[in-house]
Amino acid sequence: MLKDLFTPCLILDRGKLNDNIRKIKSIVSKHKIDFRPHLKTAKCLEITKILVKEFGLRAMVSTIEELEQLKSSGINDFLYSVAIVPNKLDRIAKNLSNSCKITVSVDNISTAQELVAFYKNTGNRITAVIELDLDGHRSGVRPYANEQLIKISECLDEFDLFRGVMSHAGESYGLSNEKDINNCAKNEADQTLMAAEIIQKAGINCELVTIGSTPTALSGCKNIGITELRAGVFIFFDLVQSGVGVCELNEIALSVLTTVISINREIDAIIVDSGWMALSRDRGTSSQEIDYGYGQVCNENGELIDDLIVTNVQQEHGIIQVREGSDAKLPNLKPGDLLRILPNHACATAAAHSCYHVVNNEDESIKIWNRFNGW
Amino acid sequence: MLKDLFTPCLILDRGKLNDNIRKIKSIVSKHKIDFRPHLKTAKCLEITKILVKEFGLRAMVSTIEELEQLKSSGINDFLYSVAIVPNKLDRIAKNLSNSCKITVSVDNISTAQELVAFYKNTGNRITAVIELDLDGHRSGVRPYANEQLIKISECLDEFDLFRGVMSHAGESYGLSNEKDINNCAKNEADQTLMAAEIIQKAGINCELVTIGSTPTALSGCKNIGITELRAGVFIFFDLVQSGVGVCELNEIALSVLTTVISINREIDAIIVDSGWMALSRDRGTSSQEIDYGYGQVCNENGELIDDLIVTNVQQEHGIIQVREGSDAKLPNLKPGDLLRILPNHACATAAAHSCYHVVNNEDESIKIWNRFNGW
Repeated sequence: MLKDLFTPCLILDRGKLNDNIRKIKSIVSKHKIDFRPHLKTAKCLEITKILVKEFGLRAMVSTIEELEQLKSSGINDFLYSVAIVPNKLDRIAKNLSNSCKITVSVDNISTAQELVAFYKNTGNRITAVIELDLDGHRSGVRPYANEQLIKISECLDEFDLFRGVMSHAGESYGLSNEKDINNCAKNEADQTLMAAEIIQKAGINCELVTIGSTPTALSGCKNIGITELRAGVFIFFDLVQSGVGVCELNEIALSVLTTVISINREIDAIIVDSGWMALSRDRGTSSQEIDYGYGQVCNENGELIDDLIVTNVQQEHGIIQVREGSDAKLPNLKPGDLLRILPNHACATAAAHSCYHVVNNEDESIKIWNRFNGW
Repeated sequence: MLKDLFTPCLILDRGKLNDNIRKIKSIVSKHKIDFRPHLKTAKCLEITKILVKEFGLRAMVSTIEELEQLKSSGINDFLYSVAIVPNKLDRIAKNLSNSCKITVSVDNISTAQELVAFYKNTGNRITAVIELDLDGHRSGVRPYANEQLIKISECLDEFDLFRGVMSHAGESYGLSNEKDINNCAKNEADQTLMAAEIIQKAGINCELVTIGSTPTALSGCKNIGITELRAGVFIFFDLVQSGVGVCELNEIALSVLTTVISINREIDAIIVDSGWMALSRDRGTSSQEIDYGYGQVCNENGELIDDLIVTNVQQEHGIIQVREGSDAKLPNLKPGDLLRILPNHACATAAAHSCYHVVNNEDESIKIWNRFNGW
């Protein structure tokens, strides 16, 4: 029973999780393309095992900690998403085995050379993809940078350490309609294929031509030559993804259970025991058409309360008010009543908690699935 | 050696921690007032033990988890800062003992009655203060609300459960000069004394008349009748506190050690392996005169690099650039180089990590002090 939980805590709706996984499964099945889920959103062994069952033994991670904690799920092909630096190779190598292949990403020749040197010195075969930068926003090689692409891939390929190219259409999170998302997905695929072609024309095989973000992966854009789709937040969805237009509010599987601690009539606010420690400071919807403050409020059963949002947070306090300009009335609640809050960004809100309380409409029992943080 | 640490990770400068504690110690010693440190900032047993040694056996906590994890420090007088709701009383009561007194805060008569009922039903003596709301911003009773103050204190006092009044000048974090901070500190004390007087005139003793926030506590404002000062973030300080004007940048004891993973010449950026997971999403300096983005960048030794800030973050990536409008040049760095990032808000950045790596200028060894989160 929810009322037995100590608040604030994280609630995961098992039915919605299943539906969200099924949604992307139908796309990858239709296009007969490999799918590599990103484990950074859930950081949870039980959820990883579900993903393994649906999508097979490949996964993306954002930390070595994820790799170490989740390899017992059976995954044997890890792709580490953050551009690698040499001082992380020792720890990565400790996780290599016949049943655990690890691929890192590089964006410059000097790191590629260090990876080769590491292999020559230790015999540890850490393979690599070239990270592509589609929009000039962070790390990665530009997909039209022929010379760099060929130099890095040749350097790695000489020792059989090269696997292909990887891109991520991060700018898709800033979009808000189907047409723009489809264009973004097409651009992600086209640019990545262009880079792969440059390398392949130089006589080097790209086994992996991998693209993805939740919005572009869900767009259903089909591209011959792309070998793999990736996505992460699709398992839970969140308010930002609803603003992008790739989910409905009632598909969001994650919420924070909170207790009303006070009613402030002076500012027409409900004060709850969830501040930024429980909700995160993420304000991802602030630049979208509908700004949900620090989260959309639902009743104890997860049903939306129209126009009721978390307008401010302190460390352990959340201030809930009716959205400015709305005619809605503050619901009549008292200290001790429970509410649930949908997150702006599921990855950030999940990271604030040590476990998921998994609820299932079909039975009343609540399961605990642990999660972890750290690097 | 810092270069042996796996990045990102949290660095705590022991010398600066000591200096910061000494700074507030000199104020409370001069005014001969009790001091109650807030343990929510550090959530760390080693740091709690230092605070116990300096300030005695009282502390403030923001979660029951802090109380449970830190009571082995010897603290015997806990004040729980979040307005209490009845469903938390059972767990709190489990921690009561002859050597552990726990006081909660209430802001309405119905919760006070529930606390009394809990005592009558279980014999567990959880005492309470009345939380005062000085600026109408969240929970608390207004300090001029005679009837409420007397009703609640009488209800609790009848069973010897009443201890006094508590306020927190949260608005002090929004200030930026000494005069305003002094006014704020005086207002905090005056309003709290006013509420205490109302109660005392009704014949009820206020053993605790407790006020505080880091800026107002450091103001050195002396007030007869105030029995106790509280503060939390003063142990580490951060960029927000420097913007408020109560510390210098070189007094900030906490930083995130990070590794350069890529250089992006196209946008003149250094890409590092610290994103919002390591730095937090806190943008507390965005409303201050100097906006530090997601943090001020220092070299590996903790020396400031002028006008170099974290301009953007993703989950595991930080984008470092020269502040807009500055003539400074991007330092000449390469992948693998180390940097340190000063946090906007120490409580939020510390919460992203599972331990402190404690460095001390006097010796080269790095100690590990664990920290925790959760409720």
